[in-house]
Amino acid sequence: MNSKIRKERFIIVGGNAAGMSAASKAKRLNPKLEVLVFERSSHVSYSACGIPYYISDMVHDVNELVTITPEEFHSKRDVTVLTKYEVVDIKPVKRLVTVIDLNSGKDVEYAYDKLLIATGSSVIPSFPVAPNVTRVFSLQTLDDGIRVKKFIDEKRPKSIAIVGGGYIAMEMAEALCQRNLDVLIIEKSGQILPGFGPEIVKEVASKLNQNKVEVLTNSQVEKAFCSGHDSVVSQLESGEKKEADMMLVCTGIQPNSKIAQLAGARLNAHNAIAVDWKMQTTVSNIFAAGDCAETQNIVSGKKDFLPSGPTANKQGRIAGENIGGGTATFPGVTGTSVFKLFDLEVARTGLDLQKAQRLNFDAMTCSVTVKSKAGYYSDATPITISVVFNKRDGRLLGAQMVGKNGVSKRIDVFATALFNRMKLDEIASLDLSYAPPFAPVWDPVLVAVNVAKTKVK
Amino acid sequence: MNSKIRKERFIIVGGNAAGMSAASKAKRLNPKLEVLVFERSSHVSYSACGIPYYISDMVHDVNELVTITPEEFHSKRDVTVLTKYEVVDIKPVKRLVTVIDLNSGKDVEYAYDKLLIATGSSVIPSFPVAPNVTRVFSLQTLDDGIRVKKFIDEKRPKSIAIVGGGYIAMEMAEALCQRNLDVLIIEKSGQILPGFGPEIVKEVASKLNQNKVEVLTNSQVEKAFCSGHDSVVSQLESGEKKEADMMLVCTGIQPNSKIAQLAGARLNAHNAIAVDWKMQTTVSNIFAAGDCAETQNIVSGKKDFLPSGPTANKQGRIAGENIGGGTATFPGVTGTSVFKLFDLEVARTGLDLQKAQRLNFDAMTCSVTVKSKAGYYSDATPITISVVFNKRDGRLLGAQMVGKNGVSKRIDVFATALFNRMKLDEIASLDLSYAPPFAPVWDPVLVAVNVAKTKVK
Repeated sequence: MNSKIRKERFIIVGGNAAGMSAASKAKRLNPKLEVLVFERSSHVSYSACGIPYYISDMVHDVNELVTITPEEFHSKRDVTVLTKYEVVDIKPVKRLVTVIDLNSGKDVEYAYDKLLIATGSSVIPSFPVAPNVTRVFSLQTLDDGIRVKKFIDEKRPKSIAIVGGGYIAMEMAEALCQRNLDVLIIEKSGQILPGFGPEIVKEVASKLNQNKVEVLTNSQVEKAFCSGHDSVVSQLESGEKKEADMMLVCTGIQPNSKIAQLAGARLNAHNAIAVDWKMQTTVSNIFAAGDCAETQNIVSGKKDFLPSGPTANKQGRIAGENIGGGTATFPGVTGTSVFKLFDLEVARTGLDLQKAQRLNFDAMTCSVTVKSKAGYYSDATPITISVVFNKRDGRLLGAQMVGKNGVSKRIDVFATALFNRMKLDEIASLDLSYAPPFAPVWDPVLVAVNVAKTKVK
Repeated sequence: MNSKIRKERFIIVGGNAAGMSAASKAKRLNPKLEVLVFERSSHVSYSACGIPYYISDMVHDVNELVTITPEEFHSKRDVTVLTKYEVVDIKPVKRLVTVIDLNSGKDVEYAYDKLLIATGSSVIPSFPVAPNVTRVFSLQTLDDGIRVKKFIDEKRPKSIAIVGGGYIAMEMAEALCQRNLDVLIIEKSGQILPGFGPEIVKEVASKLNQNKVEVLTNSQVEKAFCSGHDSVVSQLESGEKKEADMMLVCTGIQPNSKIAQLAGARLNAHNAIAVDWKMQTTVSNIFAAGDCAETQNIVSGKKDFLPSGPTANKQGRIAGENIGGGTATFPGVTGTSVFKLFDLEVARTGLDLQKAQRLNFDAMTCSVTVKSKAGYYSDATPITISVVFNKRDGRLLGAQMVGKNGVSKRIDVFATALFNRMKLDEIASLDLSYAPPFAPVWDPVLVAVNVAKTKVK
């Protein structure tokens, strides 16, 4: 099958988490493989999740967010990385990709033996932005992060409107408060953090309020335009107008799956690229991994779109292992995420109540608030846990948590329980660590499931 | 079976974690039950694990360690608690207990329908203490804790010898440093923290050294005697003598199972009371729970002696549920513990390498040291994880961890994995929470199992 005159070639479209994990893994397993990565932006292998901390200026130098440079990939791992190259077409029968050099505008064709699509995702504003508006930003790539920080450093804006109230909006609200901006969050649904339960949302809303972050819910932006001053105006459906010195769009994350679709690969209902357990698309010799690809939701048992950095890394590694000659499968995710908001930690895993009910689980939820450490310990603070469970058989379906400490890794107990399809009474018997500086003798996880247990039929 | 003239009576021997959990649970399920608790010390339902923080004076008032007083048990839960009453005999055929009122010295017989033995454990020094020595202490009960604190407050000792180098010794070393005592730890084996691997022990030893805690290993105390001054001398097997203003014995924890044995109950090889899944002893109508009872070790599949506060609470609750008319079983523990030592968190769960090998697992271990948070995040610090696994099939057998943050609840991921008999490659795919303030994109747990995976045959 392969050309005899050249080495077997593995081409990767997109050089971030999934792409570079796949490159490294495949090359390690099969050192004879020629690995070639095309990345349309200027950076590869960076921490997108670190961007808020770069903008807040906790991280001063953008290079701290870059794990490995293209040069290091070449010298240390024998992987060729071409930045500012965009793959614009795939010919799966001939196994060719068409690549544009974004600096020169020239295009070239490259033959591949195996191809990985790791194009990530994009934020697509759901409203029109007038063409003369220059102060509207989104955060997809490190280049975007650099642009936002540069704008704040140079233009010294005093206010910002963040469109969308999900967890990236929360991280950015904190970062922008630290840069002394007045922050307004505009969320179209009835609450910030869609998918989080009311007990958690209440704590988060109160924390935003304490930090003078203004929040508008039930507010859809109809358009963004320039008012003539150095500002951007958010025109809401209600007719109200909100003016700010800049706007950040944090809504509508979409998989970058167009090129896969053009190559004939099947997309799922979320427009994510359909993949099997080995991360193969429906087109021979083409794999997909990361935010552009679908993921098995272990809790629902269905394919889902749950983009995250750790998932991209794991999927990339699995794809790389299969391409490098090994055999590996990715079992899926439980949908775990965590974010910091000022002195709060907020986390979730699994299904929320609405999603569980939509999926026809006989789901219910209950919440507890208990101390995160022994009550007499000096800095014990409350932690609120909501668990979602199937009331017929007591199977855990999801959990959410908020508190000042002990949240981020405690959610992982629930994530591990979900992976193993544990029931509440099994979780209640878990031998979780205890010492007064770290937990009460009944860990909050155990208290939550013990209360939930009483509601199971 | 039950007497018709009196209510069904549930007698509990020992009023701490297991006993009081059982009392509350049984009474809640069956409010008609008469519940009577005999406790030989002066306190019930207190946090024994809080004693180091009381001695360090972080907790000023001893009552903060008491969850519920005997009076509250009576008024709020209709449970009668008699402190300073010691059960000295059980007649299982007649279902009678003989109880001595320690204040008056009088003894009385009480009939029971169900009996729970929840007598806890004791520290038994393995060396003789000369009769005139008054400065030797151990920490079993809250009374012991009060005695130690009073001694420090009044006598202002300047130095202490702690015999034993386990985790209570570590917690007490920190507490006593905070009280400005010079601390010497005398450990008979070749290392502090027996059962912990060398990577973990190295970090702990270095932390003790930084805080001027002296450590003698391979040093067995032969006897303790009084030197004529207000001090206690530890005479070592080597002939060396170590003088200090006081001594704390933290070795040789033994289940208080004598009374169960006298009643005809079977003990296991560790002298812990043998129990079935429902916490029933081998004698009809007698249950046992807490430190005096054995526990199923979920990892080894064998009965074990693994005393801990959370286990006592859970076992007590299970016993109480069965006695109160319900049905519940206790699946066992994985052997999780955590302690704080100055700014370190140290934790373990499951089997250590030696124990795994003794149990004929084809066990091996490997260790990693990685940052606990994203490398660029301001207070990211290293965390060392050692995992023990079966090299034939990759099953996880245990894990140990040390670091400045993110240890205590991270160990719980391994504890949950052990409960579910997970293999390394399953753990490697867990969807653990990620955000730069809380973890690197590859969580240290995932890094550890990914490295271990490469060693599996």
